[in-house]
Amino acid sequence: MLETNMPDAPTAAILIIGDEILSGRTKDRNVGFIAETLTDIGIDLEEVRIVADREAAIVEALRALADRYDFVFTSGGIGPTHDDITADSVAKAFGLPIDIDQRAVDLLMPFWKSRGIEPNEARLRMARIPEGAELITNTVSAAPGFRVRNVFVMAGVPAIMQVMMDEVVKSLPASRPVLSETIEARRGEGDIAVPAAKVQTDFPGVRIGSYPYHDGERFTTRLVLRSRDGDALAAAKAAMEEALKAL
Amino acid sequence: MLETNMPDAPTAAILIIGDEILSGRTKDRNVGFIAETLTDIGIDLEEVRIVADREAAIVEALRALADRYDFVFTSGGIGPTHDDITADSVAKAFGLPIDIDQRAVDLLMPFWKSRGIEPNEARLRMARIPEGAELITNTVSAAPGFRVRNVFVMAGVPAIMQVMMDEVVKSLPASRPVLSETIEARRGEGDIAVPAAKVQTDFPGVRIGSYPYHDGERFTTRLVLRSRDGDALAAAKAAMEEALKAL
Repeated sequence: MLETNMPDAPTAAILIIGDEILSGRTKDRNVGFIAETLTDIGIDLEEVRIVADREAAIVEALRALADRYDFVFTSGGIGPTHDDITADSVAKAFGLPIDIDQRAVDLLMPFWKSRGIEPNEARLRMARIPEGAELITNTVSAAPGFRVRNVFVMAGVPAIMQVMMDEVVKSLPASRPVLSETIEARRGEGDIAVPAAKVQTDFPGVRIGSYPYHDGERFTTRLVLRSRDGDALAAAKAAMEEALKAL
Repeated sequence: MLETNMPDAPTAAILIIGDEILSGRTKDRNVGFIAETLTDIGIDLEEVRIVADREAAIVEALRALADRYDFVFTSGGIGPTHDDITADSVAKAFGLPIDIDQRAVDLLMPFWKSRGIEPNEARLRMARIPEGAELITNTVSAAPGFRVRNVFVMAGVPAIMQVMMDEVVKSLPASRPVLSETIEARRGEGDIAVPAAKVQTDFPGVRIGSYPYHDGERFTTRLVLRSRDGDALAAAKAAMEEALKAL
Protein backbone atom coordinates (compact mmCIF):
# COMPACT_ATOMS: atom_id res chain seq x y z
CA MET A 1 0.00 0.00 0.00
CA LEU A 2 1.36 3.45 -0.89
CA GLU A 3 1.63 5.98 1.89
CA THR A 4 -1.58 7.93 1.65
CA ASN A 5 -3.17 10.74 3.49
CA MET A 6 -5.88 9.76 5.98
CA PRO A 7 -5.58 12.46 8.65
CA ASP A 8 -7.11 12.78 12.11
CA ALA A 9 -7.69 9.13 12.88
CA PRO A 10 -6.52 7.82 16.25
CA THR A 11 -4.11 4.88 15.96
CA ALA A 12 -4.15 1.59 17.81
CA ALA A 13 -2.31 -1.67 18.41
CA ILE A 14 -3.42 -5.06 19.71
CA LEU A 15 -1.32 -7.21 22.03
CA ILE A 16 -2.42 -10.85 22.30
CA ILE A 17 -0.85 -12.64 25.27
CA GLY A 18 -0.75 -16.42 25.35
CA ASP A 19 1.41 -19.48 24.77
CA GLU A 20 -1.59 -21.38 23.39
CA ILE A 21 -1.76 -19.10 20.35
CA LEU A 22 1.99 -19.35 19.70
CA SER A 23 1.90 -23.16 19.88
CA GLY A 24 -0.86 -23.21 17.26
CA ARG A 25 -3.05 -25.22 19.64
CA THR A 26 -5.61 -22.42 19.89
CA LYS A 27 -6.42 -20.35 16.81
CA ASP A 28 -6.73 -16.66 17.59
CA ARG A 29 -10.19 -15.19 17.09
CA ASN A 30 -9.68 -11.92 18.93
CA VAL A 31 -7.57 -9.96 16.43
CA GLY A 32 -10.35 -10.13 13.82
CA PHE A 33 -13.05 -9.02 16.26
CA ILE A 34 -11.09 -6.08 17.69
CA ALA A 35 -9.88 -5.08 14.20
CA GLU A 36 -13.41 -4.96 12.81
CA THR A 37 -14.66 -3.01 15.81
CA LEU A 38 -11.91 -0.41 15.42
CA THR A 39 -12.51 -0.09 11.69
CA ASP A 40 -16.21 0.51 12.34
CA ILE A 41 -15.51 3.48 14.61
CA GLY A 42 -12.72 4.96 12.52
CA ILE A 43 -9.64 4.04 14.54
CA ASP A 44 -6.64 2.85 12.52
CA LEU A 45 -5.22 -0.46 13.74
CA GLU A 46 -1.54 -0.23 12.80
CA GLU A 47 0.12 -3.19 14.49
CA VAL A 48 -0.61 -6.48 16.21
CA ARG A 49 1.79 -8.44 18.38
CA ILE A 50 1.37 -11.87 19.91
CA VAL A 51 3.73 -12.76 22.77
CA ALA A 52 4.09 -15.60 25.27
CA ASP A 53 2.99 -15.61 28.91
CA ARG A 54 6.38 -14.24 29.96
CA GLU A 55 6.75 -11.06 31.95
CA ALA A 56 9.73 -9.67 30.05
CA ALA A 57 8.04 -10.16 26.68
CA ILE A 58 4.76 -8.60 27.84
CA VAL A 59 6.44 -5.61 29.49
CA GLU A 60 8.59 -4.84 26.47
CA ALA A 61 5.72 -5.08 24.01
CA LEU A 62 3.42 -2.98 26.21
CA ARG A 63 5.95 -0.17 26.53
CA ALA A 64 6.73 -0.16 22.81
CA LEU A 65 3.10 -0.15 21.71
CA ALA A 66 1.78 2.27 24.36
CA ASP A 67 4.48 4.78 23.41
CA ARG A 68 3.77 4.60 19.74
CA TYR A 69 0.00 4.36 19.35
CA ASP A 70 -2.96 6.26 20.80
CA PHE A 71 -4.58 3.09 22.17
CA VAL A 72 -3.44 -0.44 22.98
CA PHE A 73 -5.87 -3.34 23.42
CA THR A 74 -4.59 -6.45 25.17
CA SER A 75 -6.27 -9.84 25.38
CA GLY A 76 -5.34 -12.78 27.57
CA GLY A 77 -3.65 -13.60 30.87
CA ILE A 78 -6.05 -12.09 33.43
CA GLY A 79 -7.47 -15.30 34.93
CA PRO A 80 -6.62 -16.89 38.32
CA THR A 81 -3.87 -19.36 37.39
CA HIS A 82 -0.08 -19.19 37.65
CA ASP A 83 0.28 -18.34 33.96
CA ASP A 84 -2.02 -15.30 34.21
CA ILE A 85 0.54 -12.54 34.65
CA THR A 86 -0.86 -9.73 32.51
CA ALA A 87 -2.07 -7.44 35.32
CA ASP A 88 1.27 -7.62 37.14
CA SER A 89 3.14 -7.13 33.86
CA VAL A 90 1.09 -3.99 33.10
CA ALA A 91 1.89 -2.63 36.56
CA LYS A 92 5.57 -3.33 36.01
CA ALA A 93 5.59 -1.80 32.52
CA PHE A 94 4.30 1.51 33.86
CA GLY A 95 5.91 1.44 37.32
CA LEU A 96 2.58 1.28 39.16
CA PRO A 97 1.81 -0.41 42.48
CA ILE A 98 -0.59 -3.35 42.23
CA ASP A 99 -2.72 -5.08 44.83
CA ILE A 100 -6.17 -6.58 45.45
CA ASP A 101 -8.64 -3.87 44.39
CA GLN A 102 -11.73 -3.62 46.58
CA ARG A 103 -13.89 -2.50 43.62
CA ALA A 104 -13.03 -5.74 41.82
CA VAL A 105 -13.67 -7.82 44.96
CA ASP A 106 -17.09 -6.17 45.25
CA LEU A 107 -17.89 -7.27 41.70
CA LEU A 108 -16.63 -10.82 42.19
CA MET A 109 -18.08 -11.69 45.60
CA PRO A 110 -21.81 -11.54 44.71
CA PHE A 111 -21.13 -13.46 41.48
CA TRP A 112 -19.29 -16.20 43.37
CA LYS A 113 -21.82 -16.28 46.21
CA SER A 114 -24.77 -16.72 43.85
CA ARG A 115 -23.02 -19.75 42.32
CA GLY A 116 -21.76 -21.32 45.54
CA ILE A 117 -18.16 -20.68 44.56
CA GLU A 118 -15.73 -20.20 47.42
CA PRO A 119 -13.32 -17.28 47.18
CA ASN A 120 -9.73 -18.48 47.48
CA GLU A 121 -6.32 -16.96 47.07
CA ALA A 122 -6.12 -17.97 43.40
CA ARG A 123 -9.53 -16.54 42.54
CA LEU A 124 -8.68 -13.32 44.36
CA ARG A 125 -5.74 -12.89 41.97
CA MET A 126 -8.39 -11.80 39.47
CA ALA A 127 -8.96 -8.73 41.65
CA ARG A 128 -5.33 -7.62 41.35
CA ILE A 129 -5.55 -4.29 39.51
CA PRO A 130 -2.82 -1.65 39.06
CA GLU A 131 -3.34 1.50 41.10
CA GLY A 132 -5.39 4.19 39.38
CA ALA A 133 -6.90 1.85 36.78
CA GLU A 134 -10.49 2.15 35.60
CA LEU A 135 -12.35 -1.15 35.61
CA ILE A 136 -13.95 -2.68 32.51
CA THR A 137 -17.20 -4.54 33.20
CA ASN A 138 -17.39 -8.28 32.50
CA THR A 139 -21.05 -9.24 32.21
CA VAL A 140 -20.18 -12.89 31.54
CA SER A 141 -18.10 -13.95 34.53
CA ALA A 142 -17.67 -10.78 36.66
CA ALA A 143 -13.83 -10.66 36.77
CA PRO A 144 -13.16 -7.20 35.35
CA GLY A 145 -10.70 -5.96 32.79
CA PHE A 146 -9.15 -2.56 33.31
CA ARG A 147 -7.75 0.53 31.65
CA VAL A 148 -4.39 2.02 32.61
CA ARG A 149 -3.29 5.11 30.67
CA ASN A 150 -3.92 4.27 27.01
CA VAL A 151 -3.95 0.50 27.54
CA PHE A 152 -7.18 -1.55 27.73
CA VAL A 153 -6.62 -4.94 29.38
CA MET A 154 -9.19 -7.59 28.43
CA ALA A 155 -9.78 -11.33 28.82
CA GLY A 156 -8.58 -13.91 26.31
CA VAL A 157 -11.74 -16.03 26.16
CA PRO A 158 -13.47 -14.61 23.07
CA ALA A 159 -16.98 -14.39 24.59
CA ILE A 160 -15.64 -12.37 27.53
CA MET A 161 -13.29 -10.23 25.45
CA GLN A 162 -16.20 -9.32 23.20
CA VAL A 163 -18.45 -8.02 25.97
CA MET A 164 -15.49 -6.07 27.36
CA MET A 165 -14.75 -4.57 23.94
CA ASP A 166 -18.41 -3.58 23.54
CA GLU A 167 -18.04 -1.72 26.85
CA VAL A 168 -14.67 -0.17 25.91
CA VAL A 169 -15.96 1.16 22.60
CA LYS A 170 -18.26 3.58 24.40
CA SER A 171 -15.25 5.38 25.90
CA LEU A 172 -13.30 5.70 22.64
CA PRO A 173 -13.36 8.91 20.64
CA ALA A 174 -15.69 8.88 17.67
CA SER A 175 -13.73 9.49 14.51
CA ARG A 176 -14.67 10.01 10.90
CA PRO A 177 -15.09 6.40 9.83
CA VAL A 178 -13.21 4.91 6.93
CA LEU A 179 -15.56 4.25 4.02
CA SER A 180 -14.82 1.43 1.64
CA GLU A 181 -15.83 0.22 -1.80
CA THR A 182 -15.10 -3.24 -3.14
CA ILE A 183 -14.56 -4.05 -6.80
CA GLU A 184 -14.41 -7.63 -8.02
CA ALA A 185 -11.88 -7.34 -10.82
CA ARG A 186 -12.58 -10.83 -12.23
CA ARG A 187 -8.97 -10.94 -13.39
CA GLY A 188 -5.65 -11.98 -11.89
CA GLU A 189 -3.46 -9.46 -10.10
CA GLY A 190 -1.00 -9.45 -12.99
CA ASP A 191 -3.69 -8.02 -15.28
CA ILE A 192 -4.91 -5.28 -13.00
CA ALA A 193 -1.60 -4.20 -11.43
CA VAL A 194 -0.79 -1.42 -13.89
CA PRO A 195 -4.20 0.30 -13.87
CA ALA A 196 -4.48 -0.12 -10.07
CA ALA A 197 -1.11 1.57 -9.57
CA LYS A 198 -2.17 4.45 -11.83
CA VAL A 199 -5.46 5.03 -9.98
CA GLN A 200 -3.57 4.85 -6.68
CA THR A 201 -1.20 7.58 -7.91
CA ASP A 202 -4.11 9.72 -9.14
CA PHE A 203 -6.03 9.42 -5.84
CA PRO A 204 -3.53 9.72 -2.96
CA GLY A 205 -6.35 10.18 -0.42
CA VAL A 206 -7.74 6.73 -1.21
CA ARG A 207 -5.93 3.52 -0.24
CA ILE A 208 -6.30 0.79 -2.80
CA GLY A 209 -5.69 -2.72 -1.57
CA SER A 210 -5.40 -5.63 -3.96
CA TYR A 211 -6.34 -9.04 -2.57
CA PRO A 212 -5.83 -12.09 -4.74
CA TYR A 213 -7.87 -15.17 -3.99
CA HIS A 214 -8.90 -18.42 -5.60
CA ASP A 215 -12.60 -18.48 -6.47
CA GLY A 216 -12.66 -22.25 -6.88
CA GLU A 217 -11.74 -22.10 -10.54
CA ARG A 218 -8.90 -19.61 -10.85
CA PHE A 219 -7.07 -16.79 -9.11
CA THR A 220 -8.96 -13.53 -9.23
CA THR A 221 -8.61 -10.20 -7.44
CA ARG A 222 -10.72 -8.17 -5.07
CA LEU A 223 -9.86 -4.48 -5.00
CA VAL A 224 -10.79 -2.63 -1.84
CA LEU A 225 -10.73 1.19 -1.93
CA ARG A 226 -10.76 2.94 1.44
CA SER A 227 -10.98 6.61 2.36
CA ARG A 228 -12.53 8.97 4.88
CA ASP A 229 -13.49 11.24 1.94
CA GLY A 230 -16.66 9.93 0.28
CA ASP A 231 -16.30 12.07 -2.85
CA ALA A 232 -12.69 11.02 -3.45
CA LEU A 233 -13.71 7.41 -2.87
CA ALA A 234 -16.53 7.58 -5.45
CA ALA A 235 -14.25 9.23 -8.01
CA ALA A 236 -11.49 6.66 -7.48
CA LYS A 237 -14.00 3.82 -7.78
CA ALA A 238 -15.32 5.22 -11.09
CA ALA A 239 -11.77 5.65 -12.42
CA MET A 240 -10.86 2.09 -11.40
CA GLU A 241 -13.94 0.62 -13.03
CA GLU A 242 -13.24 2.58 -16.21
CA ALA A 243 -9.64 1.33 -16.26
CA LEU A 244 -10.77 -2.28 -15.78
CA LYS A 245 -13.24 -2.00 -18.69
CA ALA A 246 -10.44 -0.76 -20.93
CA LEU A 247 -8.35 -3.91 -20.33
CA MET B 1 3.55 -19.24 32.19
CA LEU B 2 6.56 -19.45 34.47
CA GLU B 3 9.99 -19.23 32.93
CA THR B 4 10.97 -22.83 32.44
CA ASN B 5 13.88 -24.68 31.06
CA MET B 6 13.43 -26.04 27.52
CA PRO B 7 16.97 -25.90 26.15
CA ASP B 8 18.34 -26.30 22.67
CA ALA B 9 15.26 -25.36 20.68
CA PRO B 10 15.68 -22.88 17.83
CA THR B 11 13.43 -19.82 18.18
CA ALA B 12 11.22 -18.20 15.57
CA ALA B 13 8.93 -15.27 14.83
CA ILE B 14 6.19 -14.72 12.25
CA LEU B 15 5.65 -11.41 10.45
CA ILE B 16 2.28 -11.08 8.70
CA ILE B 17 2.20 -8.19 6.22
CA GLY B 18 -1.10 -6.78 5.07
CA ASP B 19 -3.64 -3.99 5.56
CA GLU B 20 -6.48 -6.42 4.96
CA ILE B 21 -5.72 -8.25 8.20
CA LEU B 22 -5.45 -5.02 10.20
CA SER B 23 -8.78 -3.74 8.87
CA GLY B 24 -10.45 -6.97 10.02
CA ARG B 25 -11.74 -7.54 6.47
CA THR B 26 -9.66 -10.70 6.07
CA LYS B 27 -9.22 -13.06 9.02
CA ASP B 28 -5.69 -14.36 9.32
CA ARG B 29 -5.29 -18.09 8.79
CA ASN B 30 -1.53 -18.19 8.38
CA VAL B 31 -0.35 -17.72 11.98
CA GLY B 32 -2.11 -20.92 13.08
CA PHE B 33 -0.70 -22.97 10.21
CA ILE B 34 2.89 -21.80 10.63
CA ALA B 35 2.64 -22.11 14.43
CA GLU B 36 1.46 -25.72 14.25
CA THR B 37 4.16 -26.59 11.73
CA LEU B 38 6.88 -25.13 13.96
CA THR B 39 5.53 -26.89 17.04
CA ASP B 40 5.57 -30.20 15.15
CA ILE B 41 9.27 -29.91 14.37
CA GLY B 42 10.34 -28.55 17.73
CA ILE B 43 10.96 -24.89 16.93
CA ASP B 44 9.70 -22.40 19.55
CA LEU B 45 7.53 -19.66 18.07
CA GLU B 46 8.12 -16.75 20.44
CA GLU B 47 6.50 -13.75 18.75
CA VAL B 48 4.09 -12.77 15.99
CA ARG B 49 3.71 -9.31 14.50
CA ILE B 50 1.18 -8.06 11.98
CA VAL B 51 2.03 -4.80 10.19
CA ALA B 52 0.58 -2.76 7.33
CA ASP B 53 1.81 -2.66 3.73
CA ARG B 54 4.16 0.22 4.60
CA GLU B 55 7.86 0.06 3.96
CA ALA B 56 8.96 1.68 7.21
CA ALA B 57 6.82 -0.67 9.29
CA ILE B 58 7.99 -3.77 7.45
CA VAL B 59 11.69 -2.80 7.57
CA GLU B 60 11.60 -2.05 11.29
CA ALA B 61 9.80 -5.27 12.19
CA LEU B 62 12.09 -7.38 9.98
CA ARG B 63 15.25 -5.98 11.56
CA ALA B 64 13.93 -6.39 15.10
CA LEU B 65 12.75 -9.96 14.60
CA ALA B 66 15.70 -11.18 12.50
CA ASP B 67 18.12 -9.91 15.15
CA ARG B 68 16.34 -11.56 17.99
CA TYR B 69 15.17 -14.96 16.73
CA ASP B 70 16.82 -17.82 14.84
CA PHE B 71 14.21 -17.78 12.08
CA VAL B 72 11.62 -15.34 10.78
CA PHE B 73 8.72 -16.38 8.57
CA THR B 74 6.91 -13.66 6.64
CA SER B 75 3.63 -13.95 4.79
CA GLY B 76 2.08 -11.46 2.36
CA GLY B 77 3.02 -8.70 -0.06
CA ILE B 78 4.90 -10.60 -2.78
CA GLY B 79 2.36 -10.32 -5.60
CA PRO B 80 2.46 -8.04 -8.67
CA THR B 81 0.46 -5.01 -7.49
CA HIS B 82 1.49 -1.59 -6.16
CA ASP B 83 0.84 -2.65 -2.56
CA ASP B 84 3.19 -5.66 -2.80
CA ILE B 85 6.36 -4.21 -1.32
CA THR B 86 7.71 -7.03 0.80
CA ALA B 87 10.64 -8.06 -1.44
CA ASP B 88 11.90 -4.48 -1.73
CA SER B 89 11.41 -3.96 2.01
CA VAL B 90 13.46 -7.08 2.79
CA ALA B 91 16.24 -5.81 0.51
CA LYS B 92 16.14 -2.45 2.25
CA ALA B 93 16.12 -3.97 5.73
CA PHE B 94 19.35 -5.86 5.03
CA GLY B 95 21.02 -3.37 2.66
CA LEU B 96 20.91 -5.76 -0.31
CA PRO B 97 20.57 -4.89 -4.01
CA ILE B 98 17.35 -6.11 -5.62
CA ASP B 99 16.43 -6.65 -9.24
CA ILE B 100 14.62 -9.02 -11.59
CA ASP B 101 16.10 -12.47 -10.87
CA GLN B 102 16.58 -14.67 -13.94
CA ARG B 103 15.94 -17.85 -11.92
CA ALA B 104 12.51 -16.52 -10.96
CA VAL B 105 11.78 -15.47 -14.55
CA ASP B 106 12.66 -18.99 -15.67
CA LEU B 107 10.09 -20.38 -13.24
CA LEU B 108 7.38 -17.90 -14.23
CA MET B 109 7.68 -17.91 -18.02
CA PRO B 110 6.70 -21.55 -18.69
CA PHE B 111 3.83 -21.25 -16.19
CA TRP B 112 2.51 -18.11 -17.92
CA LYS B 113 3.06 -19.51 -21.41
CA SER B 114 1.11 -22.69 -20.66
CA ARG B 115 -1.85 -20.55 -19.56
CA GLY B 116 -1.68 -17.94 -22.33
CA ILE B 117 -0.77 -15.22 -19.81
CA GLU B 118 1.30 -12.38 -21.20
CA PRO B 119 4.31 -11.29 -19.13
CA ASN B 120 4.10 -7.59 -18.32
CA GLU B 121 5.97 -5.16 -16.16
CA ALA B 122 3.65 -5.72 -13.20
CA ARG B 123 3.88 -9.51 -13.39
CA LEU B 124 7.66 -9.30 -13.65
CA ARG B 125 7.69 -7.53 -10.28
CA MET B 126 7.10 -11.01 -8.85
CA ALA B 127 10.61 -11.92 -10.06
CA ARG B 128 12.23 -9.13 -8.02
CA ILE B 129 14.41 -11.00 -5.52
CA PRO B 130 17.14 -9.60 -3.26
CA GLU B 131 20.67 -10.52 -4.30
CA GLY B 132 21.94 -13.78 -2.82
CA ALA B 133 18.52 -15.12 -1.88
CA GLU B 134 17.57 -18.78 -2.21
CA LEU B 135 14.22 -19.32 -3.93
CA ILE B 136 11.29 -21.13 -2.34
CA THR B 137 9.24 -23.18 -4.81
CA ASN B 138 5.59 -22.29 -5.39
CA THR B 139 3.84 -25.33 -6.88
CA VAL B 140 0.49 -23.49 -7.04
CA SER B 141 1.19 -20.40 -9.12
CA ALA B 142 4.96 -20.47 -9.84
CA ALA B 143 5.92 -17.06 -8.37
CA PRO B 144 8.58 -18.06 -5.85
CA GLY B 145 9.15 -17.04 -2.28
CA PHE B 146 12.72 -16.65 -1.08
CA ARG B 147 15.08 -16.94 1.83
CA VAL B 148 17.50 -14.17 2.80
CA ARG B 149 19.70 -14.82 5.84
CA ASN B 150 17.35 -16.17 8.51
CA VAL B 151 14.20 -14.76 6.90
CA PHE B 152 11.78 -16.88 4.84
CA VAL B 153 9.54 -14.75 2.62
CA MET B 154 6.26 -16.41 1.63
CA ALA B 155 2.97 -15.55 -0.05
CA GLY B 156 -0.11 -14.33 1.83
CA VAL B 157 -2.71 -16.49 0.08
CA PRO B 158 -3.05 -19.44 2.49
CA ALA B 159 -2.95 -22.19 -0.16
CA ILE B 160 0.29 -20.80 -1.59
CA MET B 161 1.87 -20.06 1.79
CA GLN B 162 1.17 -23.64 2.85
CA VAL B 163 2.98 -25.26 -0.08
CA MET B 164 5.88 -22.87 0.49
CA MET B 165 5.99 -23.73 4.20
CA ASP B 166 5.97 -27.45 3.36
CA GLU B 167 9.04 -26.77 1.21
CA VAL B 168 10.74 -24.57 3.83
CA VAL B 169 10.33 -27.16 6.58
CA LYS B 170 12.75 -29.50 4.80
CA SER B 171 15.56 -26.98 5.24
CA LEU B 172 14.96 -26.31 8.94
CA PRO B 173 17.00 -28.05 11.62
CA ALA B 174 15.33 -31.02 13.23
CA SER B 175 14.98 -30.43 16.93
CA ARG B 176 13.80 -32.50 19.82
CA PRO B 177 10.07 -31.96 19.52
CA VAL B 178 7.96 -30.62 22.33
CA LEU B 179 5.71 -33.34 23.71
CA SER B 180 2.40 -32.45 25.24
CA GLU B 181 -0.28 -33.96 27.44
CA THR B 182 -3.74 -32.54 27.91
CA ILE B 183 -5.81 -32.87 31.05
CA GLU B 184 -9.47 -31.90 31.11
CA ALA B 185 -9.80 -30.56 34.65
CA ARG B 186 -13.63 -30.42 34.55
CA ARG B 187 -13.45 -27.52 36.98
CA GLY B 188 -13.09 -23.76 36.71
CA GLU B 189 -9.68 -22.11 36.76
CA GLY B 190 -10.31 -20.79 40.27
CA ASP B 191 -10.51 -24.36 41.59
CA ILE B 192 -7.39 -25.69 39.93
CA ALA B 193 -5.13 -22.65 40.20
CA VAL B 194 -3.45 -23.57 43.49
CA PRO B 195 -2.60 -27.21 42.60
CA ALA B 196 -1.52 -26.19 39.09
CA ALA B 197 0.88 -23.60 40.49
CA LYS B 198 2.33 -26.18 42.88
CA VAL B 199 2.91 -28.76 40.14
CA GLN B 200 4.46 -26.03 37.98
CA THR B 201 6.89 -25.21 40.79
CA ASP B 202 7.72 -28.89 41.32
CA PHE B 203 8.38 -29.52 37.60
CA PRO B 204 10.30 -26.54 36.20
CA GLY B 205 11.15 -28.47 33.01
CA VAL B 206 7.46 -28.77 32.12
CA ARG B 207 5.36 -25.78 31.07
CA ILE B 208 1.82 -25.96 32.34
CA GLY B 209 -0.70 -23.86 30.47
CA SER B 210 -4.20 -23.33 31.81
CA TYR B 211 -6.88 -22.59 29.23
CA PRO B 212 -10.38 -21.75 30.41
CA TYR B 213 -13.25 -22.30 28.03
CA HIS B 214 -16.99 -22.60 28.03
CA ASP B 215 -18.16 -26.15 27.31
CA GLY B 216 -21.70 -25.02 26.53
CA GLU B 217 -22.84 -25.35 30.12
CA ARG B 218 -20.14 -23.78 32.22
CA PHE B 219 -16.56 -22.58 32.29
CA THR B 220 -14.08 -25.40 32.60
CA THR B 221 -10.32 -25.67 32.18
CA ARG B 222 -8.01 -27.53 29.88
CA LEU B 223 -4.51 -28.00 31.26
CA VAL B 224 -1.78 -28.51 28.69
CA LEU B 225 1.60 -29.79 29.91
CA ARG B 226 4.51 -29.39 27.49
CA SER B 227 8.11 -30.56 27.69
CA ARG B 228 10.91 -31.98 25.58
CA ASP B 229 11.54 -34.48 28.39
CA GLY B 230 9.08 -37.37 28.19
CA ASP B 231 9.82 -38.70 31.67
CA ALA B 232 9.39 -35.32 33.34
CA LEU B 233 6.17 -34.82 31.36
CA ALA B 234 4.73 -38.16 32.51
CA ALA B 235 5.66 -37.45 36.14
CA ALA B 236 4.13 -33.97 36.03
CA LYS B 237 0.95 -35.33 34.46
CA ALA B 238 0.63 -37.95 37.20
CA ALA B 239 1.20 -35.33 39.89
CA MET B 240 -1.37 -33.03 38.33
CA GLU B 241 -4.00 -35.76 38.08
CA GLU B 242 -3.35 -36.74 41.69
CA ALA B 243 -3.75 -33.13 42.80
CA LEU B 244 -7.03 -32.78 40.88
CA LYS B 245 -8.43 -35.94 42.49
CA ALA B 246 -7.65 -34.52 45.92
CA LEU B 247 -9.79 -31.44 45.31
